[in-house]
Amino acid sequence: MKRATVGETGERELIKLIRRLFPSSRREVMRGIGDDAAVIRPGKTPWVLTKDLLVEDVDFRRSLHPPFLLGRKSLAVNLSDAAAMGARPALALLGLGLPPDLDLAWVREFLRGFRSRAREHGVDLVGGDLSASREIIVSVTVLATAAKTIGRGGARPGDRLYVSGTLGDAALGFALIEKGKAGGRAAAGLRRAFLDPSPRVELGLDLARLDLPSAMIDMSDGLSVDLAHLCEESGTGAEVDLARIPLSGEMVRLGGKKALDYALNGGEDFELLFAARPTRRNESRLEEMGRRHAVTPIGRIVAGRGLTAVHPDGARVKLAVRGYEHFRG
Amino acid sequence: MKRATVGETGERELIKLIRRLFPSSRREVMRGIGDDAAVIRPGKTPWVLTKDLLVEDVDFRRSLHPPFLLGRKSLAVNLSDAAAMGARPALALLGLGLPPDLDLAWVREFLRGFRSRAREHGVDLVGGDLSASREIIVSVTVLATAAKTIGRGGARPGDRLYVSGTLGDAALGFALIEKGKAGGRAAAGLRRAFLDPSPRVELGLDLARLDLPSAMIDMSDGLSVDLAHLCEESGTGAEVDLARIPLSGEMVRLGGKKALDYALNGGEDFELLFAARPTRRNESRLEEMGRRHAVTPIGRIVAGRGLTAVHPDGARVKLAVRGYEHFRG
Repeated sequence: MKRATVGETGERELIKLIRRLFPSSRREVMRGIGDDAAVIRPGKTPWVLTKDLLVEDVDFRRSLHPPFLLGRKSLAVNLSDAAAMGARPALALLGLGLPPDLDLAWVREFLRGFRSRAREHGVDLVGGDLSASREIIVSVTVLATAAKTIGRGGARPGDRLYVSGTLGDAALGFALIEKGKAGGRAAAGLRRAFLDPSPRVELGLDLARLDLPSAMIDMSDGLSVDLAHLCEESGTGAEVDLARIPLSGEMVRLGGKKALDYALNGGEDFELLFAARPTRRNESRLEEMGRRHAVTPIGRIVAGRGLTAVHPDGARVKLAVRGYEHFRG
Repeated sequence: MKRATVGETGERELIKLIRRLFPSSRREVMRGIGDDAAVIRPGKTPWVLTKDLLVEDVDFRRSLHPPFLLGRKSLAVNLSDAAAMGARPALALLGLGLPPDLDLAWVREFLRGFRSRAREHGVDLVGGDLSASREIIVSVTVLATAAKTIGRGGARPGDRLYVSGTLGDAALGFALIEKGKAGGRAAAGLRRAFLDPSPRVELGLDLARLDLPSAMIDMSDGLSVDLAHLCEESGTGAEVDLARIPLSGEMVRLGGKKALDYALNGGEDFELLFAARPTRRNESRLEEMGRRHAVTPIGRIVAGRGLTAVHPDGARVKLAVRGYEHFRG
């Protein structure tokens, strides 16, 4: 075996290693390692399990993130994983690693934020664990129920690709905050997208109820990376029409030449990306849904491998997959 | 509000704060924050949820703990929580925070250890999350099933107190390893108790099946602390007969004058502590069980508050509660 570090190996190879080492055998396991969440069927109803680990100075910075909003966000990122399965969040577990010299007021605000997001979605915190640590560590598990779950691997050539909301706002919001250029009221939406993202739980539930998506994922690493995940699991390629990528007004005004780069490769949007067969039934349901949720068609699933960007003039180039990768900085 | 740090507040007060902030409302929640694990009833069968966070240099040291055994232990401590509820472990989620410069071989050995413990108990790893971090972070969630769960709060005056196995071995094992005095074959059991503890899953299941314990807890912080937890939740006091505390042969030979201190206040035994009514039925079942599991009566639950140590000569003194407290070093 070649000697290598975790950083040289990278997140995707690590997940493959774990998947290889832990084949699933129990009959109640419907989806195991490799999707947005695990799905088990303890009784008649499937349960969806998510787990996210947030580490200070890697996943958030204490100096940039008000603790109330960090509490909201640490639950939101798990709710987003549940949303991507079309599941309704019900219960949460919270593990906290806290430096002993941390101010209790920080913890209290964090917990209040966690609670405010939990209440919005009817989620109960039922347990967890505490440990001392050098950096703040937040480990959340969410349990959600689903009549039917939607995986990443069901997309087929000919399916249309859709995204919710607008893309890149969180990445630009982070860039502004990091540079100390908060941007005033003109950037309020961008800051909020980064500090207090909204998980698309209701959209995920509506899509699952209508049995619309053939595959779905939430965008935590950036459109290019998350689309690559969806295509890899589905064994397909995809084409993205760059002119159709939805950008917010604030992004158009403040993103400048980098707007499309933020939208394609910026992480932490927590919007939903899904594929759907282009049937008349699906089209009319999506149109109807458009009144309740912002959903934009951005391209299509194609045979073969690889992602293609289609420019407004019709030029087709390889879409570079350059989103956030843990362990590589 | 008085300003205070996490360290000044302490783990128990933090848990009380969380409990106060998050009252449970959902009907499927049978036990929430404050027991060994949460219990939910998604269908007919109750499910038990545990979560443990292990942080490098707080909960383990990389230089002292072979990664294979750390993988086994990080699952074992969660299995022990499930055992304390009388539940059968079924599924696990694994969150890992890994320093980018960590050798991949370490991760591989850790995962193999985790898998070996999982296989012993028929547990499937179904999901998790990875993040970069400065120190190694291990966050495990276990889901277990139970026909009937046993909490911490059901003990009544007159109940007898029992413990499984022998106490203090892990703490003495850690002390020897830390001092670089591994102790050779004469201390093999002590080292194993610390590096590779055995969760009492089968005992927990047998006890639950026989409906024996009125209250049960696993000893992660030390007998005095964990007994205090059980008594606090039950609203009782307890008396411990010091002469009856079970000590291993290695402890008797190597623990010297501190043997009883290790047994009373050393953490990480992961043995079960439980109370049971002194009925003829229970006594005869416990006797029968003694052939399969080592279980020792060590005292009794009494009315009022506080813990009393009963010396061999009959002298009664207050039992000091001095086990492991996170955040206080």
